[in-house]
Amino acid sequence: MQASEAKWTDLEKKIARTAFDKAYKREVEALLKQVRAEAEAIAEVKDLWRLHDFLSAKRHEMEGKYDYHYSTLIFIFAGLLKEGWLQMSDLEGLDRDKLAKVAALARM
Amino acid sequence: MQASEAKWTDLEKKIARTAFDKAYKREVEALLKQVRAEAEAIAEVKDLWRLHDFLSAKRHEMEGKYDYHYSTLIFIFAGLLKEGWLQMSDLEGLDRDKLAKVAALARM
Repeated sequence: MQASEAKWTDLEKKIARTAFDKAYKREVEALLKQVRAEAEAIAEVKDLWRLHDFLSAKRHEMEGKYDYHYSTLIFIFAGLLKEGWLQMSDLEGLDRDKLAKVAALARM
Repeated sequence: MQASEAKWTDLEKKIARTAFDKAYKREVEALLKQVRAEAEAIAEVKDLWRLHDFLSAKRHEMEGKYDYHYSTLIFIFAGLLKEGWLQMSDLEGLDRDKLAKVAALARM
């Protein structure tokens, strides 16, 4: 599975960027909602440091995950699909081979 | 000013511990309130990472500041007094020399 060697047409690049941004937006919105709810429930200092640990982990995870490179985009999309931040329909317009790879990786 | 060589009677230790815990409680309560308000105002991801940075700094600061040792207690109390988490009245019962040192350091 030589995803890194796949060529991306201009149209595919546009579709990919839109899907990527959409997933990011969805995940950020869910995260903001979760943090607001958790912050509201903070009752003591250990809840605060738990929130801090959560944010540290999440920030690290997000920075690693949303790193846009064509060489790794197939894997990124597969991960986002698996986690529910993307649907296959968001990727419509990519060539069949890429879609098949994304779908196969997402099932792993 | 050899604060580290000061002797603490049992009564003074009790007073010191109570004052220390009181300051900690006050500062934590103010912090919880502030974090809840800031979390409520989070609108985008950069607000979230700003909150994360704030919590990182605050956690580090709190862990350093509330480190209970008799050898450094005079300095700790002076700092807490300066920041408003303690009043001189919270330290009533400590010997005059200690109170004078705390007050002098707090003015620096």
